[in-house]
Amino acid sequence: MTKHLNKDTIICMSLAARPSNFGTRFHNYLYDALDLDYLYKAFTTQDLKGAIGGVRALGIRGCAISMPFKEECIPMLDELDASAKAINSVNTIVNTEGYLKAYNTDYIAIATLLKQYKVPNDFTFALRGSGGMAKAVACALKDAGFTQGFIIAKNEKTGSDLAKLYGFEWRKDMTDLKPDLLINATPIGMAGGEDADKLSFSEQQINSAQVIFEVVALPAETPLVNYAKSQNKAVITGSEVFAIQAVEQFVLYTGVRPNDELFQQAAKHARQGA
Amino acid sequence: MTKHLNKDTIICMSLAARPSNFGTRFHNYLYDALDLDYLYKAFTTQDLKGAIGGVRALGIRGCAISMPFKEECIPMLDELDASAKAINSVNTIVNTEGYLKAYNTDYIAIATLLKQYKVPNDFTFALRGSGGMAKAVACALKDAGFTQGFIIAKNEKTGSDLAKLYGFEWRKDMTDLKPDLLINATPIGMAGGEDADKLSFSEQQINSAQVIFEVVALPAETPLVNYAKSQNKAVITGSEVFAIQAVEQFVLYTGVRPNDELFQQAAKHARQGA
Repeated sequence: MTKHLNKDTIICMSLAARPSNFGTRFHNYLYDALDLDYLYKAFTTQDLKGAIGGVRALGIRGCAISMPFKEECIPMLDELDASAKAINSVNTIVNTEGYLKAYNTDYIAIATLLKQYKVPNDFTFALRGSGGMAKAVACALKDAGFTQGFIIAKNEKTGSDLAKLYGFEWRKDMTDLKPDLLINATPIGMAGGEDADKLSFSEQQINSAQVIFEVVALPAETPLVNYAKSQNKAVITGSEVFAIQAVEQFVLYTGVRPNDELFQQAAKHARQGA
Repeated sequence: MTKHLNKDTIICMSLAARPSNFGTRFHNYLYDALDLDYLYKAFTTQDLKGAIGGVRALGIRGCAISMPFKEECIPMLDELDASAKAINSVNTIVNTEGYLKAYNTDYIAIATLLKQYKVPNDFTFALRGSGGMAKAVACALKDAGFTQGFIIAKNEKTGSDLAKLYGFEWRKDMTDLKPDLLINATPIGMAGGEDADKLSFSEQQINSAQVIFEVVALPAETPLVNYAKSQNKAVITGSEVFAIQAVEQFVLYTGVRPNDELFQQAAKHARQGA
């Protein structure tokens, strides 16, 4: 199975505390389909500095960065792209002859979707969550010109810090709010999580909104997505976020952009073994 | 081709200034044939410390060390096996949960062959060469109990140093010597080299010897091997050295010993693309 491998095969990888098989299956499927002499492998490490040093010293072309290394890796890199600098969080490192430039393709994906769906930036919004993904969303909203919005988070510290950072307001809950745009950046609705069956916003809140943006990617159809679709709302899904961020990563590593059909095949293949 | 790869696939690799495809093709062929979830890839580096640090931090199971890193890597490792300590030269690193133990399977191979061919240790010998491989041979001879021998090297410094190290004599050339055992550890006879067609010892010297030991592995039949065989001498070949050292490396990484038939297939496959 690996008989084609040779000394010049280009290696890409990922670093995560708990690696999944998704990236390995996704990227290798595309390399094969596009006949690229690349190979992708997920790694974990207990020595991030040594691991990033290895990426550099071994000429590993690309390295995806997952939890909990997204901020910790920053001092070890040579340059942050605007996408990573804006939110002080890295999910992609590109190694060009030992020079490590970092990106955040989650931010890129969210910014792309806000533009693609033409969400008016005079919409009011409520963004639920205050973690890394919520940060990427809040920054993308600010950069897209949104000014009237609320960060909804039970945790006052992280919620109000995030709100302040981008000039929005923090609220503990949604009481009395009826925003045009609702965004879920919490694990509510995520497969396997304890809130997998829950709606991240109430039916009433969804009914009064115009656009629903779900960041959870698995399952593709969360309770939020299903209910919003049943009410004929405009819905942006976490699958779309994931698709764009993964393709952007692939393009950064290889310079090749797979078409949508091929991407769907690769994502399906990857999900089967993840 | 790489669709079987997953997050748990074990990685082995090599580090060389100028990597060949031999190891990548050899090991991957055996992994496939033996259904081992391993993958092997040759790398080069300009930062050995970063590369070895990466081996450790990324949990890379094994790393072959080639020129010019065989001595330089030593301070970066945790333990030297007797095979590496004896000659202060490493060609194999085994990583067990971040603990790096180093071996020299060239030494192991030479010692094994001297034993296997029952070369009497009261034989006189002439060893041509004073590089890393000559060092492995000289040390194996000493450890096997040989006491009467000559290091033949044009370079007085390296030749006499090597001779002194193991209690042998240095000679600039073979004049007047008629040893029982002749060993070539120079590139004379090596495919692609400038002395590919040359005999590393004279016909007369070969005629008067009893055992001929060629360390050059490519081609399998060097001028020395061919002539010695034509004279019905006992001949130990570089292919045998290579085979044993490669198999020992494979066993150290995987714990699995391929049988000889499978080894021959893997070596043939590897030579085709090297």
